[in-house]
Amino acid sequence: MSEPYRLFYWPFLPGRGEFIRLLLEDVGAAYVDVARLPEADGGGIASIMPLIRGEVDGIPPLAPPILQVGDQYICQVANVCQFLGQQHGLVPSDTLGALHANQLQLTVADLLAEIHDTHHPVAHMAYYEDQKVEAKRRASHFLERRMPKFVGYFERILVKNGGPWLLGESFTYVDLSIAFVLTGLEYAFPLSFGAYKAQIPRLMVLKAAVEARPRIAAYLASERRLGFTERGIFRHYPELDTLPAEASRGSR
Amino acid sequence: MSEPYRLFYWPFLPGRGEFIRLLLEDVGAAYVDVARLPEADGGGIASIMPLIRGEVDGIPPLAPPILQVGDQYICQVANVCQFLGQQHGLVPSDTLGALHANQLQLTVADLLAEIHDTHHPVAHMAYYEDQKVEAKRRASHFLERRMPKFVGYFERILVKNGGPWLLGESFTYVDLSIAFVLTGLEYAFPLSFGAYKAQIPRLMVLKAAVEARPRIAAYLASERRLGFTERGIFRHYPELDTLPAEASRGSR
Repeated sequence: MSEPYRLFYWPFLPGRGEFIRLLLEDVGAAYVDVARLPEADGGGIASIMPLIRGEVDGIPPLAPPILQVGDQYICQVANVCQFLGQQHGLVPSDTLGALHANQLQLTVADLLAEIHDTHHPVAHMAYYEDQKVEAKRRASHFLERRMPKFVGYFERILVKNGGPWLLGESFTYVDLSIAFVLTGLEYAFPLSFGAYKAQIPRLMVLKAAVEARPRIAAYLASERRLGFTERGIFRHYPELDTLPAEASRGSR
Repeated sequence: MSEPYRLFYWPFLPGRGEFIRLLLEDVGAAYVDVARLPEADGGGIASIMPLIRGEVDGIPPLAPPILQVGDQYICQVANVCQFLGQQHGLVPSDTLGALHANQLQLTVADLLAEIHDTHHPVAHMAYYEDQKVEAKRRASHFLERRMPKFVGYFERILVKNGGPWLLGESFTYVDLSIAFVLTGLEYAFPLSFGAYKAQIPRLMVLKAAVEARPRIAAYLASERRLGFTERGIFRHYPELDTLPAEASRGSR
């Protein structure tokens, strides 16, 4: 790669773009976070719109994040991570290991979709305020049943393989991704995730180890890193953050 | 491959297993649909449970469908399809084409999750009957906004590349997958999908062309093919199948 990668993602939230940013940062790849440039320099949301209108050669992207590589565009987080992981040595070199990395990344994606739907259970394109009642019910179910199912699965993998990473001895892009999701859960559900995290000690060690990687630590301390806001996937609405005991009284 | 593949999936519905069955059928691969064997022959749901309890070497699967290849297990539909597609020539041979096939398959997966949530918007592990009101609202939103967004995206790709397949001249596993989803939408929402399909003529031609492939036609006519039921992802609940005009009166 002589040219830097160009990443297109909403400039005001970490969101799904963060999985790709963390990977690019960890491998020290040159990239431009295009929509965060001023509009006068070709940035802003205006830079994304032609792409999602399909004004590109070949298969158009459906939604950001979108990675431009040369004159081509690829999207879908797990797809972009798999590509970048292969380019930069963040996937196991054996076929089975690469398949399992992709498998775990897709499970992270499933978890992420469920996190999103805690605040948007009935209408993705409507406001949270118009689905608060349903959100309360879905968030309770998520915290009581789905978070332990998904997050507990990743913990069991570490118990089984002895760590330190999800693929064992090989550090992969999946470790970056799960660390980010844990950070997001901590932000969105400080009370209930705070109570739950005693049950996932190995994952919490993994998260700390990811955050201590020199390039990740530098990134997290930089202005390139965007904070969470209530416009993103991870939103902190105190009314949704109930402890499992409370949650179980509100759902079946 | 000397041994046949072994597929593990719920034996009473097409579900996510169908994406893998269609691929195996189209390439004429030898496979055993394990859970459909009698329990006495090692089949039934009992064959799946040890796998999801993690009683396997290496990374355990989280949920079916699960493909056993030799003594290893892989899961997540898009992951298994990518693997089988590469093994059996159902992905483009160039890197970009393979990335775009995976990208589209992941978009099919996103669409599928939204279809599932039309009848389970607030609690995946609870009954439909306990979330009918929310389901009505989510289904309206899906039919009015999300189905056109996702399905229309695939139609636009065919308009752009001239077809006959989503990747242009190359037939891929993504064509099998989208044809199945269209069949499922037709089953679940005969009224609203029936009204919508005039807007996706190229996709309907693609679907017919998939169904006319000799091995697929033979499979669809066989007893190996399971019908849709109200236990699966695609469910026909007439109360959720409203025409867009009606739907728009019921949501914002």
